[in-house]
Amino acid sequence: MNEQESGSLGVVIPLEESKNKLASIKPLVDLTRADMERVNQLILSKAGSDVQMIPEVANHLISSGGKRLRPMLTLAAASLFDYRGDNHIKLATSVEFMHTATLLHDDVVDESDLRRGKSTARMIWGNQASVLVGDFLLGQAFRMMVDVGSLDALDVLSSAACVIAEGEVLQLSVAKNMETTEDDYLSVIRAKTAALFAAAAEVGPIVAEAGRSGRNALKSYGMNLGLAFQLVDDALDYGGKAADLGKNVGDDFREGKITLPVILAYRRGTEDERAFWRDAIEAGNSSDANLEKALGLITKYGTLADTIGRAIHYGTIARDALAPLPDTVWKSALMEVIDFCIERVN
Amino acid sequence: MNEQESGSLGVVIPLEESKNKLASIKPLVDLTRADMERVNQLILSKAGSDVQMIPEVANHLISSGGKRLRPMLTLAAASLFDYRGDNHIKLATSVEFMHTATLLHDDVVDESDLRRGKSTARMIWGNQASVLVGDFLLGQAFRMMVDVGSLDALDVLSSAACVIAEGEVLQLSVAKNMETTEDDYLSVIRAKTAALFAAAAEVGPIVAEAGRSGRNALKSYGMNLGLAFQLVDDALDYGGKAADLGKNVGDDFREGKITLPVILAYRRGTEDERAFWRDAIEAGNSSDANLEKALGLITKYGTLADTIGRAIHYGTIARDALAPLPDTVWKSALMEVIDFCIERVN
Repeated sequence: MNEQESGSLGVVIPLEESKNKLASIKPLVDLTRADMERVNQLILSKAGSDVQMIPEVANHLISSGGKRLRPMLTLAAASLFDYRGDNHIKLATSVEFMHTATLLHDDVVDESDLRRGKSTARMIWGNQASVLVGDFLLGQAFRMMVDVGSLDALDVLSSAACVIAEGEVLQLSVAKNMETTEDDYLSVIRAKTAALFAAAAEVGPIVAEAGRSGRNALKSYGMNLGLAFQLVDDALDYGGKAADLGKNVGDDFREGKITLPVILAYRRGTEDERAFWRDAIEAGNSSDANLEKALGLITKYGTLADTIGRAIHYGTIARDALAPLPDTVWKSALMEVIDFCIERVN
Repeated sequence: MNEQESGSLGVVIPLEESKNKLASIKPLVDLTRADMERVNQLILSKAGSDVQMIPEVANHLISSGGKRLRPMLTLAAASLFDYRGDNHIKLATSVEFMHTATLLHDDVVDESDLRRGKSTARMIWGNQASVLVGDFLLGQAFRMMVDVGSLDALDVLSSAACVIAEGEVLQLSVAKNMETTEDDYLSVIRAKTAALFAAAAEVGPIVAEAGRSGRNALKSYGMNLGLAFQLVDDALDYGGKAADLGKNVGDDFREGKITLPVILAYRRGTEDERAFWRDAIEAGNSSDANLEKALGLITKYGTLADTIGRAIHYGTIARDALAPLPDTVWKSALMEVIDFCIERVN
C-alpha cells in the first residue's frame, strides 16, 4: 500500500477538551535537555568496550534516533520531586540500556529486518552479536544501578527485567493464535512495554527519596502511559505513515502478531471473515492482497479507532495518577506526553 | 570417530605428587548436599511462571544433569568462612541462573544441536524461547541478589555478567581466525568461563562478611579453577569420551572455534599444515576426513597434553590462592575439585 493510503487513516480522536494545537513532547525535551546530554555521554561511555564489536553494534542502535522517552521519564520523575543529585542520570541510562537490550533481543526473536527505517543490528552483525551485545548492555545497566546503591531502585528495575522477558515469552506463546482475547493481549503489552515505562517513572521518586504515595503515583502514570503508547503503536502498524516511523505498514500482520486491531476485527467478523484471519495469521498467508483485505476488515469494524479509544482510556488513568501532585512545569510536561503519545496516530 | 578411539587419548598428567586414587568432586558434593537441596528447590520455584513455556524451557536445561559446580562453589566458599545464614542459598541459585541463561544464549549463538547428550532448548522450542527464557532467568538472578541486599555481591555478580557477555562477543570476533594467539584465547576463556567461577567463589566470603584477603583468595581460586576447567573442556572436545560428556568430539572443530589445542598445532605446524588449518577452520571445510587429519596433527604436536599442562599451571595457582586459609574439610574439598577438573580428561 502506498503512503497516501496508509496515511489517510483519519481516526477522529475524542479528546476530552478540544485543543487548537497538537500535544508535544517538546516541553519534556526542553526541561530535560541538560540532563539528557549527560545521559547521552554516559550511554556512549558505558557502551564502550575494548571488544570493538560491542560499541559498533550498540552505537548503531543508540544513534538510530529513538526519542529516548524512557530515560526522559526517569529524569522528569526525579525532578518532579526536587531531586538535586546525580544518580538519576545513571538510572536513566540504565533504563535506556535495558530498553536497547530488549530491542536487540526482540529483533532476533521477531526476525526483523528494519527498525526505525534502518537495517537492524542482526542484519548487519548477525543474530549472535545482537544476543550478546544485548546481554552486555543489560549487564552494564545493572552495574550502573549497583553503583547508585539504591536497593529499592534495583528491586524495581530487576523486577521489570523479569516481567519484560516473561511478557515476551507470553507473546511468543499467543503468537498466531486467533483465539487470543483482549485480556491476553493486555497482559502481553503490560509486561513487555508498560512495565519498563512504570519502572522508569518509579525510580524517579525513589532516587529523590519521595514517599510511598509519590512512588505509586509515578508507577501508575508510567504503567498507563506505557499501555497507551503500545496500543497506539499497534494501531500505527495498520495505518501509520511507515516512512516517518521507520516501520513497514503490515509488519505485525506478516509476523502473525496478534494485536488489538486484529483481535477486535476477528471477534466482530462473520464466520467467513474469521476463517480469513485464521488463514492469514495462523497459517501465515500474509500476501499483500491479504494485507489489503485485512485493512479493509479493520476499517469495516472501526477497530483502529477503538484501539485508540482504549489508549485514551489508559491515558486518562495516567493523567489522574499525577493529578494530586503539585502543579509544576515538570508535571505539566509529563501530562502533555500522554496526549503526545496518543496523538502520534495523526 | 568411535568412542574407543576417542577414549584412548592417553594423556599422561604429570601430577605433582603421584596418587593412588583419582581426585573426586564427592567431598564437595557431600558437604554441600543439604544446602544444594535448598538451592534445587529455589531453582524450581524461581524458574516457575504463569507463562507455561518458561518453566518448560528452564527445567529442560536445569534437569539435564549438570554438576552444578558453580553454586556448590558459592556454598562452600561461604561455609569456609563459617557463614551461618541463608543468603548463600539465594546467591548460589543466582549464580546457577546466570550460568543457565548463558547456556541458553550460547546455544543460540553457537547454533548447537546437543548439550550434555540432550537436544538443546533451541532445537525444541526455537531460538526465540531460548533468548527470552535466558533473559527471564537473568532477571530472576538479579532479583534474588537484590533480595539478599548485599551491594558488594551485586557488584561482583553484575560485573561478571558484563565480562561474560564481553567475552562471548570477543570469542565471536576471533572465531575462524587462525592468527588468534594463546593470549587472545586466554582473554576469551577468562571472560566467558573463569569470571563466573571467580564471582561464584568470591560472593561466599562476601556474604560471610569475611575481609578483603578472604575475598581475594576465593576470587583467585575461582578464576584459576575456571581457566583450568575450560582448558580441559577444550582438550576434551578433541579427545574425550563424547558419550559420557554428552558432547560430540570435534564440535569445536566443526564450528570453527579456535581453542588452544588448535592454536598450538597451527603455530607448531609446517606451512602445508597451516594451510590445512586455514582451510578447515577459516573456510569451514570441516569434513570427517578433515577432523581425522586435525586429530592427527594435534597428536603429532602433542597439543592436548600441552593444553592439559596449561590447566595444571592454573590449577597450581588456584591451590596456592587457598593455601593460607585454615585447614578445614571445606578447604580440602575445594582443593580436590581442582584436581578433579583436570583429571576429567582420563
